[in-house]
Amino acid sequence: MTDIAQRAGVSKVAVSYALNDQPGVSPATRAAIKSIAEELGWRPNSAARALTGGRAQTVGLTLRRPPRTLGVEPFFMEFISGVESVLSARSYALMLQMVDSQDKEIEVCRRWWGERRVDGVLLTDLRADDDARVPAIAALGLPAVAIGPPDVSGPLPAVWSYDGESVHEIVRYLAVLGHRRIARVAGAAELAHTRVRDAALTAACAEAGIPEATVIHTDYTGDQGARATRALLIAAERPTAIVFDNDIMAVAALSVAQELGLSIPADLSVVAWDESALTQVVRPMLSAVTRDIPAYGARAAQALLAVIEGEEVADIRDGYARFVPRGSTCPPPDAAP
Amino acid sequence: MTDIAQRAGVSKVAVSYALNDQPGVSPATRAAIKSIAEELGWRPNSAARALTGGRAQTVGLTLRRPPRTLGVEPFFMEFISGVESVLSARSYALMLQMVDSQDKEIEVCRRWWGERRVDGVLLTDLRADDDARVPAIAALGLPAVAIGPPDVSGPLPAVWSYDGESVHEIVRYLAVLGHRRIARVAGAAELAHTRVRDAALTAACAEAGIPEATVIHTDYTGDQGARATRALLIAAERPTAIVFDNDIMAVAALSVAQELGLSIPADLSVVAWDESALTQVVRPMLSAVTRDIPAYGARAAQALLAVIEGEEVADIRDGYARFVPRGSTCPPPDAAP
Repeated sequence: MTDIAQRAGVSKVAVSYALNDQPGVSPATRAAIKSIAEELGWRPNSAARALTGGRAQTVGLTLRRPPRTLGVEPFFMEFISGVESVLSARSYALMLQMVDSQDKEIEVCRRWWGERRVDGVLLTDLRADDDARVPAIAALGLPAVAIGPPDVSGPLPAVWSYDGESVHEIVRYLAVLGHRRIARVAGAAELAHTRVRDAALTAACAEAGIPEATVIHTDYTGDQGARATRALLIAAERPTAIVFDNDIMAVAALSVAQELGLSIPADLSVVAWDESALTQVVRPMLSAVTRDIPAYGARAAQALLAVIEGEEVADIRDGYARFVPRGSTCPPPDAAP
Repeated sequence: MTDIAQRAGVSKVAVSYALNDQPGVSPATRAAIKSIAEELGWRPNSAARALTGGRAQTVGLTLRRPPRTLGVEPFFMEFISGVESVLSARSYALMLQMVDSQDKEIEVCRRWWGERRVDGVLLTDLRADDDARVPAIAALGLPAVAIGPPDVSGPLPAVWSYDGESVHEIVRYLAVLGHRRIARVAGAAELAHTRVRDAALTAACAEAGIPEATVIHTDYTGDQGARATRALLIAAERPTAIVFDNDIMAVAALSVAQELGLSIPADLSVVAWDESALTQVVRPMLSAVTRDIPAYGARAAQALLAVIEGEEVADIRDGYARFVPRGSTCPPPDAAP
């Protein structure tokens, strides 16, 4: 205010009148003061607003995955871009922190909320059992939305898509092609959405009348994906189709098949989850499940802003990911002609 | 404070004494109050601190790339993880915003600074000419560090690595293998680091006594990378080696070569920049330049915190990316035996 007053050659009181749209200054002076204020980057100070019971106008997001995985898996950046499309339209900012443990994540949320740096948080990668963040954040009274199934989100509203639907679609498709030995290279076993996919896979195989699929859990890295694929392909009874829980592991599988002299899809069908720039850049292009991830992020952000505004928010079920066959699936080599 | 006082069964004054480490309460009461405060997530309010001339304890980062590219290219997530390693240790937070234009980026910085939401910003993807952000941010007085060559960072301290060094190393290596027709599928022409690589490539080819390399500029997507590679490979005089400005375009090139029945590396050598989880998951594994990106991010964050604290910060030149041959480079098919 002092800077503006100096530059405009008026008193601080005049500046205050002008910026707060109160009478006491001429229209010309008001316009001049506003233009100088704009030039100097002046805004109603957010610190002052926060102190007077206003909001931080900021939403927090913590990510608990190794940066090397985060960087390669397009999911999070696409999700964040959807979150931001909603936040920017409402002049909210996004605070981001990468953490390496759940305890650290709770500590970050506690600090953010204690210092009123955020008005609410989005929780991702919900755990199937004992997600310590849910009760901790509920106890803090920190507005939050959980990205995951409602049976693990406790008192927090859940924004989720039922992955079981997609699993059933994939298995039905593969079974109709003639596959009977299906395997899955899955993500982290402790995550809620992995658990949902695990259960759906068992049910879907039973429904399709094929043997229960072998599942190997990994940490989502290409490295562990390659190792799991290798283990499956050198087994006595190797699968004729493998479903991968992310894109980078499916791409790694192409390399493993090549090592072992197996042709894709003739000798092995491959399905990736989710489709991404990566699954489309390799050959054959990968058959994959696809969904609008930015839209999913946008829905989560809308729900959180509603919670922040004190609205009653119900769980929001997003559409499930649809299977799109590309070049990496076909009938198995042993299928009846 | 009211909540804490209620829970502790003491007056608000006692709470204030206890939390501000002033005399007037017994050690036992002080301990009880502090423990309740901790439980309730209390911290010295950051809004109050900011108002009294303190800091937002937050650093801003805007990203001006399409989310689909950001998601696939591991560079930014690794860079951010390095930035955060330094910020968390100093209890600073990171504010992130994706923008679609330079004007939008300036507007975001102006708002962040006007509202004192950030204490400083990191500028990435500097433009070779007329980067409007540099003078705009300097004029605002917003502490900032530019990630890019010092000749385009104006008055802002630059954290940078000289990419020309890496270009020379790649060209020398390829020339020694016998390559004479080198091409490059480059990033966006208007970026400063693309310009540096362009100039170094011309110089390096001249030094190696080979014809000047053909360069095609792209937007870094796998799609444009594939298109550029196809254009190069169906030309009358096709190159025997192609250098790619990111990993996803180099992976796309493997698919294009496969389409055209060309074997890598026998018919075509491929070099990726930077090495990533992606370049290591494909077969052949890609020869690439590699550097410690998180360390680069950490250095940038340290420089920015120093600027925020009012220190005089000189330009910081990081080590350049080193060439690591993997499986995608060998002598050209037409090399003398």
